[in-house]
Amino acid sequence: MTKKIVVLPGDGIGPEIVAEAVKILEKFREEGLNINLEYGLIGGAAYDETGTPLPAETLEMSKQADAILLGAVGGYKWESLDISVRPEKGLLGIRSELNLFANLRPAILYPQLADASTLKPEVVAGLDLMIVRELTGGIYFGQPRGIRTLDNGEKQGFNTLVYRESEINRIGKVAFDIAAKRQGRVCSVDKANVLESTELWRETMTTLSKSYPDIELSHMYVDNAAMQLVRAPKQFDVMVTTNMFGDILSDCASMLTGSIGMLPSASLDENSKGMYEPIHGSAPDIAGQNIANPLATILSAAMMLRYTLDEASMADRIEKAVSKVLDDGLRTADIYSAGMTKVSTSEMGDAVLAAL
Amino acid sequence: MTKKIVVLPGDGIGPEIVAEAVKILEKFREEGLNINLEYGLIGGAAYDETGTPLPAETLEMSKQADAILLGAVGGYKWESLDISVRPEKGLLGIRSELNLFANLRPAILYPQLADASTLKPEVVAGLDLMIVRELTGGIYFGQPRGIRTLDNGEKQGFNTLVYRESEINRIGKVAFDIAAKRQGRVCSVDKANVLESTELWRETMTTLSKSYPDIELSHMYVDNAAMQLVRAPKQFDVMVTTNMFGDILSDCASMLTGSIGMLPSASLDENSKGMYEPIHGSAPDIAGQNIANPLATILSAAMMLRYTLDEASMADRIEKAVSKVLDDGLRTADIYSAGMTKVSTSEMGDAVLAAL
Ligand SMILES: CC(C)[C@H](C(=O)O)[C@@H](O)C(=O)O
Ligand SMILES: CC(C)[C@H](C(=O)O)[C@@H](O)C(=O)O
Repeated sequence: MTKKIVVLPGDGIGPEIVAEAVKILEKFREEGLNINLEYGLIGGAAYDETGTPLPAETLEMSKQADAILLGAVGGYKWESLDISVRPEKGLLGIRSELNLFANLRPAILYPQLADASTLKPEVVAGLDLMIVRELTGGIYFGQPRGIRTLDNGEKQGFNTLVYRESEINRIGKVAFDIAAKRQGRVCSVDKANVLESTELWRETMTTLSKSYPDIELSHMYVDNAAMQLVRAPKQFDVMVTTNMFGDILSDCASMLTGSIGMLPSASLDENSKGMYEPIHGSAPDIAGQNIANPLATILSAAMMLRYTLDEASMADRIEKAVSKVLDDGLRTADIYSAGMTKVSTSEMGDAVLAAL
Repeated sequence: MTKKIVVLPGDGIGPEIVAEAVKILEKFREEGLNINLEYGLIGGAAYDETGTPLPAETLEMSKQADAILLGAVGGYKWESLDISVRPEKGLLGIRSELNLFANLRPAILYPQLADASTLKPEVVAGLDLMIVRELTGGIYFGQPRGIRTLDNGEKQGFNTLVYRESEINRIGKVAFDIAAKRQGRVCSVDKANVLESTELWRETMTTLSKSYPDIELSHMYVDNAAMQLVRAPKQFDVMVTTNMFGDILSDCASMLTGSIGMLPSASLDENSKGMYEPIHGSAPDIAGQNIANPLATILSAAMMLRYTLDEASMADRIEKAVSKVLDDGLRTADIYSAGMTKVSTSEMGDAVLAAL
């Protein structure tokens, strides 16, 4: 049966980097992969055309899709809009409406790019950490929320951080299952000494871990976790945390590798239907210049092939091709270092295509 | 008039490190500094003795004090207690009851300790960043909060993130005033693209900045800020942010210097009455071994002399003495490197005392 892939290029560098990943999917299609690509509007691009960052049509086609490939959303242009129609709201809407609660964010140091890290080589060499971020709950979606005017005339902004046991359990299971295929260690990150919501998080993880006797569960406060990521990131195997803490820690972790332009992510529902996107943002400052790094998006397509389309060998081919172009010394500007060959977005995409 | 200093050693390594700072204050007292030291219980130590982490007596004496010197609170021993009587609650209670809304957390790289950082020398050399963290509001104190049982029988944990304009303005002013004495740049950190509370934060900071024409205000999302701290921390002069984000970012920033054991902090009210404490925690794993680094606490005493007691020259003497013992190669275990002289907590304290 034909699998339906929805492509949402989004804003900023989104269209450029997605185009390179699509080239590769198209090549696999020519080779016989039974997929059908459909394009949709999201984010600022959607807002400009339709007045909403998540048009009903995009949501509908995404719901019917087997997988979604997303570029990035947001940019200066839309920053003064009301929060309810910002480009980001489109992304949050898809995550929530499609129940994509499990966000997998690897932080891997590519040996070819070891120099790109701002950390000392001995601290990050071989880094391979997986952050599992809860993506459809917590303070991102909690009600009530808003800005109200108090009796004395001043404004007050408020948000609600909320988690129930079932939400914590299902993301915990994802983390434990992933750890079982890795080094078997899960570090759950919370602020259980201050926030009751994450006290429940900690208790629930502890109870859940009893069903996973082979996995070692530890707990860490989020401030300490941010510190330990800088001090000794290789101590971690799998980290699991809330939506907000995961947002912060995964950006920090990915930068440890010096190459956030290299890192893909997957956001999955209960049935491994998923959305795939680079960890990095829409980078409006370099949009349209054909200099962005398409590899995170290309590697996101590889994750899609592996997790949703069950085409592990095609995923392997992409990952090996990426490794080969790096071995060949090809570098976009963000990962460039002396002695390497600087290439554009499309040259990088073509090189991966040729190396498949 | 005699100034009243309340000393709250707290838990873990707290008593050991505070003792070294007290030695120095006592020496200044002998030289004529008109202070009176009084001791109080806080945290786990207070809970064990009185059943509460913040006894009324401690709160009362702290309210009457001109300044407070705190060690650290918390430890494994109390982790299974209900959140309402945890050691941390004592610290949060003092902050809130004394209205210590402005938490100043410098991240400074000591040139003598340049090697201790896990970051490459060129990335952190000369790092001198001040994080201004809102300390008495936000999700730390927002109501409602707790754990409830839902109709279907499962538990739900909830917390409230809330800020009003006046709270944002007063912490903003502190940041702008500090920036005016530094490089004149404030970066306000929020998540205004997702959280309405921090949308108000951003708007309020922007409005406030109009009264500070000589200060350059920029805004950054918290995930990007965590990333930029690792990528290029020297881009920042002063960062100002919420209680929760400040907790995370300041721990991350202090670890950039490789020497969290060196960094003091001040928590001030509207009248520069304040509490002074090291940034690091109670480190229960090394408590009682006389190996902890007392310098962050000693430097906290220096901040107290400077900000609350108006004794800048004594503060200078402490800071110069710390610099001298580092020049002499003295190192506690946390900052030890080959070729240096490893010393204990009390040896380090004595060395600073002798170098005054
Ligand atoms: C764009 C923004 C809403 C989003 C988030 O905060 O989740 C982004 O930072 C991310 O991490 O995917
Ligand atoms: C001990 C804890 C309550 C405290 C906080 O979260 O504020 C600590 O981490 C700090 O940063 O001072």
